[in-house]
Amino acid sequence: MAYSDAMMSSDAPDPSPADASPQPYHHGELRPALLACARGILEEDGFEALSLRAVARRAGVSRQAPYHHFADKEALLAAVAAEGFRALAQASRTRMRSAAAGRERLNASGVAYVTFAAANPALFQLMFGGGGEGFRTDPDLVAARAESLAVLTGAVEGLTPSMGASPAHAALKAWALVHGLADLLIRGIVAPRDLGVTDAEALARAILD
Amino acid sequence: MAYSDAMMSSDAPDPSPADASPQPYHHGELRPALLACARGILEEDGFEALSLRAVARRAGVSRQAPYHHFADKEALLAAVAAEGFRALAQASRTRMRSAAAGRERLNASGVAYVTFAAANPALFQLMFGGGGEGFRTDPDLVAARAESLAVLTGAVEGLTPSMGASPAHAALKAWALVHGLADLLIRGIVAPRDLGVTDAEALARAILD
Repeated sequence: MAYSDAMMSSDAPDPSPADASPQPYHHGELRPALLACARGILEEDGFEALSLRAVARRAGVSRQAPYHHFADKEALLAAVAAEGFRALAQASRTRMRSAAAGRERLNASGVAYVTFAAANPALFQLMFGGGGEGFRTDPDLVAARAESLAVLTGAVEGLTPSMGASPAHAALKAWALVHGLADLLIRGIVAPRDLGVTDAEALARAILD
Repeated sequence: MAYSDAMMSSDAPDPSPADASPQPYHHGELRPALLACARGILEEDGFEALSLRAVARRAGVSRQAPYHHFADKEALLAAVAAEGFRALAQASRTRMRSAAAGRERLNASGVAYVTFAAANPALFQLMFGGGGEGFRTDPDLVAARAESLAVLTGAVEGLTPSMGASPAHAALKAWALVHGLADLLIRGIVAPRDLGVTDAEALARAILD
């Protein structure tokens, strides 16, 4: 939000003053600004409200402008989801850096996963919910999801002898656990108070530690 | 499907021959028939296609008839979801009966959960996805979900000393694991072949055993 607001109130010179639909963005700035606007719409107004037209309106650009960066709505959704996976991977890495080693690192990545979902429920649902075939097979999204899973797999490596399973088994088991917890939480089916804690992070710690 | 087809081809006498919209159902038969039709629409045509009108059409009754049993679409969705939770609980109990004891019983309930989701993906998503506030707070749905969770909690009981956690912690952990696996599976993000197996049941066994 802060980012998109900054972009919208930017007094950067219009790069194409002769254009009928002036865009207050420097070259290369529009795509990230559109993605930030899309994410803002997603969290504030929900998935149903997200369209290329709504993104253009929020960014203060012409209705045609987003089409220079996204072929259609599916492509926009895939780009937002891919950014989400990269942000999730980054959040996991950050938390893992402050964890000791072994199981604590794995738990840190799990706590990062659940707290990310709780903080960005609509984005998380988009990341895993998707759209049509174009969304599911989008190369950037597939790569970003793989990167995110690789962080988890990295945390699992070295633990697998004690977990009595192959790395692939152990990673999927760790992933399924935090994914299920995140999903039950953001759907409101499970609440932190069910385990006597106050927020998603504490719930994740209670389950994972 | 088999059930609803049987209902539709029923040659039962019309209970109200003077009615402008004859209904080929005995008293008490229409509600379960409508639910069976709703579930058929859900799995064959998807959530978007599900409406009281579509259910009436499939059941071969008047557009008004479903309103004798369901106040609105939310109420219909909640009833379908509640039936789903009861079917899930039943599937878990059936599998648990053929398991030895302890951890095997818990794993059997987990395998039941994942295979149920894989066999009824749209129903499973409705059960956890829901609709508005009326859906989420529907008393019958809340009770059916609690019954389903009680089966899992029952399987966890007696194991908790060895799991080093309270029953509530252990049950949520077991639930989150199978829920996450089911969700990743029905969304097509994880596939049985990822672990070198051929179906959801084998994948669940590989992760849980």
